[in-house]
Amino acid sequence: MKSIHQLARRQALTGLAMPRVLSTQNLAASRTWQRAFSASAPAASQLPGLDPSKLTITKTTTPKEPMDSKDLVFGKYFTDHMLSVEWTATEGWHAPQIVPYQNLSLDPSTCVFHYAFECFEGMKAYKDSNGGIRLFRPNKNMERLNKSSARIALPTVDGDALTKIIGEFVKTDSRFIPDARGYSLYLRPTMIGTQKTLGVGPPGSALLFVIASPVGPYYPTGFKAISLEATDYAVRAWPGGVGDKKLGANYAPCILPQLEAASRGFQQNLWLFGEEEYVTEVGTMNLFIALKNKETGQKELITAPLDGTILEGVTRDSVLTLARERLEPLGWAIKEQKIRMSEVAEASEEGRMIEVFGAGTAAIVSPVRNISYRGKMVECGLKEDEEAGEIALQMKNWIEGIQYGDEQNPWSVVI
Amino acid sequence: MKSIHQLARRQALTGLAMPRVLSTQNLAASRTWQRAFSASAPAASQLPGLDPSKLTITKTTTPKEPMDSKDLVFGKYFTDHMLSVEWTATEGWHAPQIVPYQNLSLDPSTCVFHYAFECFEGMKAYKDSNGGIRLFRPNKNMERLNKSSARIALPTVDGDALTKIIGEFVKTDSRFIPDARGYSLYLRPTMIGTQKTLGVGPPGSALLFVIASPVGPYYPTGFKAISLEATDYAVRAWPGGVGDKKLGANYAPCILPQLEAASRGFQQNLWLFGEEEYVTEVGTMNLFIALKNKETGQKELITAPLDGTILEGVTRDSVLTLARERLEPLGWAIKEQKIRMSEVAEASEEGRMIEVFGAGTAAIVSPVRNISYRGKMVECGLKEDEEAGEIALQMKNWIEGIQYGDEQNPWSVVI
Repeated sequence: MKSIHQLARRQALTGLAMPRVLSTQNLAASRTWQRAFSASAPAASQLPGLDPSKLTITKTTTPKEPMDSKDLVFGKYFTDHMLSVEWTATEGWHAPQIVPYQNLSLDPSTCVFHYAFECFEGMKAYKDSNGGIRLFRPNKNMERLNKSSARIALPTVDGDALTKIIGEFVKTDSRFIPDARGYSLYLRPTMIGTQKTLGVGPPGSALLFVIASPVGPYYPTGFKAISLEATDYAVRAWPGGVGDKKLGANYAPCILPQLEAASRGFQQNLWLFGEEEYVTEVGTMNLFIALKNKETGQKELITAPLDGTILEGVTRDSVLTLARERLEPLGWAIKEQKIRMSEVAEASEEGRMIEVFGAGTAAIVSPVRNISYRGKMVECGLKEDEEAGEIALQMKNWIEGIQYGDEQNPWSVVI
Repeated sequence: MKSIHQLARRQALTGLAMPRVLSTQNLAASRTWQRAFSASAPAASQLPGLDPSKLTITKTTTPKEPMDSKDLVFGKYFTDHMLSVEWTATEGWHAPQIVPYQNLSLDPSTCVFHYAFECFEGMKAYKDSNGGIRLFRPNKNMERLNKSSARIALPTVDGDALTKIIGEFVKTDSRFIPDARGYSLYLRPTMIGTQKTLGVGPPGSALLFVIASPVGPYYPTGFKAISLEATDYAVRAWPGGVGDKKLGANYAPCILPQLEAASRGFQQNLWLFGEEEYVTEVGTMNLFIALKNKETGQKELITAPLDGTILEGVTRDSVLTLARERLEPLGWAIKEQKIRMSEVAEASEEGRMIEVFGAGTAAIVSPVRNISYRGKMVECGLKEDEEAGEIALQMKNWIEGIQYGDEQNPWSVVI
C-alpha cells in the first residue's frame, strides 16, 4: 500500500486523473486502513524531513514585557516569537524558522478555511527549581500529532526533530515562563493545510507552527470541584470516525452542547454514547471514575477504553500508568473499560462512589462534584466541604512533581 | 431559552464565569436543541443585522484578464474582487465591503485554525441568453448557511440581505462569467471564527467572505459515468452528529478514504452507514438510485432521507421536486427512504436496476457505472457504451434549462 505522502503527492501533482483499474483485491486490506495510515514519520516519505540543523532564528526588534503572572488568561497572551515550518508535496519539509510572532497571511481559498485541514497539540514547558526548562512526555504529543495529521492527509514529521526545535523555541522565549509552581508555558503546535484551491483533495502544502502562551495554575486558589451535564442529545464521536484524533473538526461542533450545559449552570458537558449511554469523555478532558465494585467491594479506577471514540490523552495515559504503579499495590483495580452512566448513578445511590475527576493538560486533574443525568444529580463522592478527592489530589501531586523535576522521571525531559 | 447570539455574546463578554445554578429543569427542552438552535436570522439577535445599504465597493487598480474558458480548473482561479463582512459579538454585522481579492491576515491563535470554526456554501451565477445574470435557489443556500453557522456557534445572517450583496458582488465581477452553456461563476460564501484565543468557546468575532471562481462544464465532452467504492471501514456522519451541516469539519476526514478508493481506481467513495450498510451519500454529492420494485415492478427513484447524516443538497431537493412533478405522473414512485447496499446489489443481480446518479452543485448529476461492494462490482444499469441513463440526462436538461433561464421558473433569480 502506498504511503499517504506518496498518494498525496501523486494526487497533488496529477489532480484527479486516477488510473481506472477496477480491481477490488485490496478491499480486505483497506479494513486495516486505520493502522496502515497511522504512518510514523520515517516511513512516510522520501522527501526531505524536518532538519533541526537548518533552523534559523530572527529575533523581534520590539520585545515586550511578560504579563504579570496574576493577569494571565489561558491562551490569550503569547510570547515574542513563533516557530514556523512550511511543507510542500514536492519539496517536503522546508527549513524551520523562529520568527517574531506575527499574523498568517493566507489566500481566502486556502483549504484550512473551507475543509478543516487542521490539527494541533497541547503541551507545556516548565521551569524547575534549578532554573532548568522541562517538557513533559513530548514524544506522546509528537506521536499523536502524526496520527492526527496522517488521518487528514497532512504530512507527518519526525517527532524527535520537532521536539528539538520546539526546545529551541522555548529557550528563545524562556523569559516568558513564570518560575512559580503551577505556572508554565503552554505550547500549541498546529498544522494547517495551505493549498490554494477549492477542489476537495489532499493539500499539496501545509504549515506547521508553534505558538506559546504563559499560563497560571488552573485552580489558583486550590481545587474547585465542577458540575457536569451528561449529554444524550448530541454525539461527539463515532466508531470509524475521527474522535480519537486531535483535529480542529472535533471541537467547533462541541460548543453548542457546552453552551447548553452552561446555560443551566454546568461547567462542562459529559458525552454519553449509544443506547447503553456509555461514559466517554468531557471534550476537553478524559474522565476517571473511582468506585467500589458492586460484587467484591474492591476499589476500582475506571476510564473509557481507546476504542476510537476517545481522545488519547497524555494525562490520561500518565494517570493510568501511575495508578498501575502506585495504586494497584494498595489493592486498587485499574480498568480501561466501558461503563454506563446508569452504573455510575447506581454506584452513587448505593454509596459505592469514591470520586470522579477529569484528566487533561490544562488542569492535570479536575475533580467532579456531581453529574446531571436524566433529571437527577448524581453525586460523585465528595463531601459538601470537599473540593477534591484523595486520588485526584495524589495524581496532581505525583504528575506535577514529575513535570517540575522534583521527582526524577524519564517523562520529564530537560531541554 | 436564550438565543445562540445571546449565549455567545455573554460567553464572549464574561468568559467562563457561568452562573452555578444546578437546575435541570430544562433537560427535556434540551432534547429539542437541534430545532431550537437552527435559529433563523431575524430571531437570533438584537444586534445590527447585515445591511445592504451600507455596502461599499473598492475596485482593484490592477484588473486582470479573465482566464481562457478552456483553461478553467474548478476553484483555482478567482475574480478581481471579494465580498467581506465582519461580525463581532458586541456590534453585530459590520458594513459589507467589496474589495480587491486579497489575502486574509490572521493572528496564529485565531480559532478557525484550531477548532474548525468554519462553514461554507457552494452556489453558482449563470449568464442567460439575454445577458442577464441569474442565481439558482439562493434562498436554499442562505437557509443552509444559517443552519451550519448556528450549529457551531457562529452568527446567523439575514439571507435576503446576503443574497442582495452577493448579487452586487457578482455584478461587479460579471465580466468573469463565461456566457456559454455549461459555464458559470462558482460562488463560495464562507464564514470563519476570528477570535484570537486558544480557549475553546463560542467565537466573539467572525468573518463572512465570498470569493468567486469561473468554472466550465463538469463533463466538457459529455457525460462520463463514474465508478464508486462502497466504504464500510470508516464513517462520515452519525445520528446526533453534524453530517447534515456544511461544515469544514465534515470534509478533511473524508480525504483518506477517498484516496484509498482512488488508489484502487475509483473516482469517489460511497459512504455506507451502520450494520445495515445503508447507502448515504458520496461526500460531495447525494445519491439517487432508480430501480424496479421487487414486488410490484414499479419504477422507483430512491434517495436517502434527511435523518441528520445526509447533507441537505440543493440539487438533491431540486431533483426530488422535479421528479415528483414530472416523473410521478409517468408512473414513477419518488422515495426518500433508507436503502441497504445489499438491496442495491440485489436489484442489480436481478436485472431490476435502471440507473444510479449523484446530484450536486458541481456536476448537477453524475452518472454512476458501478459500485465496488464486498469484493464484487455492482453494475448500475448502464450499457457498456452508455455514459448516462435517461433520468440523469433529463434531470440535467431540466435543471440547466431553469438555471440558464430557458425555462421560466421561480427557482431562477435574476439579479
